[in-house]
Amino acid sequence: MSKQSQLAIGLDGIAVAETDLSLVDGLEGLLVYRGYWARDLAIHHTFEEVAHLLWYGHLPSEEELTALKNKLKENRELPEHVKGLLRMIPADVDMMSVLRTGVSALGSSAHGWPPTIDEVIAVTAKMPTIVAFRYACLQGREPLAPKFELDHTANYLYMLKGTEPSHAHVRALDAYLILTQEHGMNASTFTGRVVTSTESDLISAITGAIGTLKGPLHGGAPSEVTEMIEAIGTKENAEPWLRNKLENGGRLMGFGHRVYKTIDPRATALRVVAEQLSGDDPWFDLATHVEQVGLRLLAEYKPGRKLNTNVEFFAAAVMRAVGLDDDLFTPSFAVSRVVGWSAHILEQAASNRIIRPQSNYIGSMPE
Amino acid sequence: MSKQSQLAIGLDGIAVAETDLSLVDGLEGLLVYRGYWARDLAIHHTFEEVAHLLWYGHLPSEEELTALKNKLKENRELPEHVKGLLRMIPADVDMMSVLRTGVSALGSSAHGWPPTIDEVIAVTAKMPTIVAFRYACLQGREPLAPKFELDHTANYLYMLKGTEPSHAHVRALDAYLILTQEHGMNASTFTGRVVTSTESDLISAITGAIGTLKGPLHGGAPSEVTEMIEAIGTKENAEPWLRNKLENGGRLMGFGHRVYKTIDPRATALRVVAEQLSGDDPWFDLATHVEQVGLRLLAEYKPGRKLNTNVEFFAAAVMRAVGLDDDLFTPSFAVSRVVGWSAHILEQAASNRIIRPQSNYIGSMPE
Repeated sequence: MSKQSQLAIGLDGIAVAETDLSLVDGLEGLLVYRGYWARDLAIHHTFEEVAHLLWYGHLPSEEELTALKNKLKENRELPEHVKGLLRMIPADVDMMSVLRTGVSALGSSAHGWPPTIDEVIAVTAKMPTIVAFRYACLQGREPLAPKFELDHTANYLYMLKGTEPSHAHVRALDAYLILTQEHGMNASTFTGRVVTSTESDLISAITGAIGTLKGPLHGGAPSEVTEMIEAIGTKENAEPWLRNKLENGGRLMGFGHRVYKTIDPRATALRVVAEQLSGDDPWFDLATHVEQVGLRLLAEYKPGRKLNTNVEFFAAAVMRAVGLDDDLFTPSFAVSRVVGWSAHILEQAASNRIIRPQSNYIGSMPE
Repeated sequence: MSKQSQLAIGLDGIAVAETDLSLVDGLEGLLVYRGYWARDLAIHHTFEEVAHLLWYGHLPSEEELTALKNKLKENRELPEHVKGLLRMIPADVDMMSVLRTGVSALGSSAHGWPPTIDEVIAVTAKMPTIVAFRYACLQGREPLAPKFELDHTANYLYMLKGTEPSHAHVRALDAYLILTQEHGMNASTFTGRVVTSTESDLISAITGAIGTLKGPLHGGAPSEVTEMIEAIGTKENAEPWLRNKLENGGRLMGFGHRVYKTIDPRATALRVVAEQLSGDDPWFDLATHVEQVGLRLLAEYKPGRKLNTNVEFFAAAVMRAVGLDDDLFTPSFAVSRVVGWSAHILEQAASNRIIRPQSNYIGSMPE
């Protein structure tokens, strides 16, 4: 038998990189993007500003912001062959598979080593168009061309829904997308870095990351929260419904988190946004009410467990409030997380070393 | 500053899994697939037999082999939308990008959790068709339908070249494909396991693995060997050419390996195959001569370095001898390695745990 290596299934507690990009501290409930609280960024800044922070290391000046917005806008249109394949993929193929294929089809011999910031901007600009183009095809309407006047999040909502979104909806979705842009060395980001570490190209790395996010252990199943809130239906029904669930040993969706053992800072930020807009939309209103009752009842039924609202609760509330179907939840997560993936890919490429672990052979040896 | 985790950039010496699939021992020069020497499997068995060993854990009975061959044959045809996109992707997109997109496009809502052996057989069957279909498009000829009478490797060569291959060519390519089916926890296999670990689907995992293999630090640059042998041109020119290279401090392509510090067992096996067939093809003949002279001169110029022939040397020789262009080298590697990827994916899924390492934040903290 050959020599065995240190076994670390799951890689818990093993750091594969030193990073300038983010700090995720689940015990303290901290989320920092390059020296700023993610919470503050989500409340006071925009998608493009925070992307600039993650990619370039600082919040943009006015000139830098205009330049980045223009570059994103100029790169939104899809190549003809990508449009063609988005029309051809059978209607029953799920949106995450379509997004993975659509992004992969952006690859070309021009994508080499090392990945560049221009390539990063181009793929970030095109991902909302891929999702919206496909979504329109599925609804039997002609996809809308991206609208140059609109910023990233507003244009995404516009292409999906066919009408210019309200300021409140843009603000709410923007906050959600900012809060999911980056989250340390999660499984999809890690995949992006492993792919990059062989000196493969940006498109290969992003394609791999999308496939990883597709798994429910990572991308989540946010529809469970919307189904719960829909089943509750009215504010009056919240307490009896939730109490009945807990009395019967059921789990409340959108509370508790694997990493965060205290308040998920992303939930805190989204609550602020949701509260600001609660007059605007009955969904925000119902969701914030369900949250308050849920927290009160969890303290009553499961004292000492410290079950707090997680990001999925408010993500579901925001997504539903702005009118996005459940099928668009994980794809929209990808539309924002591509910023963090690509920031990590650039960081990996800047001081690359192949990520190549071992396995311990426990089979038999030849005679 | 938050607590820091054990830093293991590159993950050298960290085992992320216990596996029954293979032992790679670079110090001793050992390569074992499930209890058999890979060398013996390559010389005495076929692509399908060794795939059966890796997937099911034992070499097949006659009935099992027939059943597997038939399943592979029945799954070779591509869905219409995949054929359509292989025709539409612009001609200047490299074959690895096309293969990544073509495989991704096989994904559907039917691919769920956990991955199944039927899905594994289906994607393994289709990958040669994707490569050959695209290759025919690029050559301006109509792609050939897979030929049911031919086994996996013979059919691949047939679809690529348009004529039924000789037995010698099939045998040589089969040996190469067997020897590259599996190789421990390399970067692409690891990617496949990380993707799978989020409970994502088989197609996402294979797509991620293809993107990882695309990187030259992993998939290699086998054309460097063919270029060297082509530049040498004749047996008579081998010694003066190689001596001149070494005198001028140049590197000989196809010698030395990052993992194997002794003879690469895959090179040993391919040499046996190449020698058996050397009368059949001038390329084998020239390549084996270049190898002998190369080893003699390396011992003379770099004594004590123990630079042995690596698998790329004979891979290039075999690929060229059977008439495959340099552009087909890495895609053909993927066509074989999908067997190992999928065996690892099934193993990961059987006792899954999310692979989610840490990163250490070295940026600044908010005030």
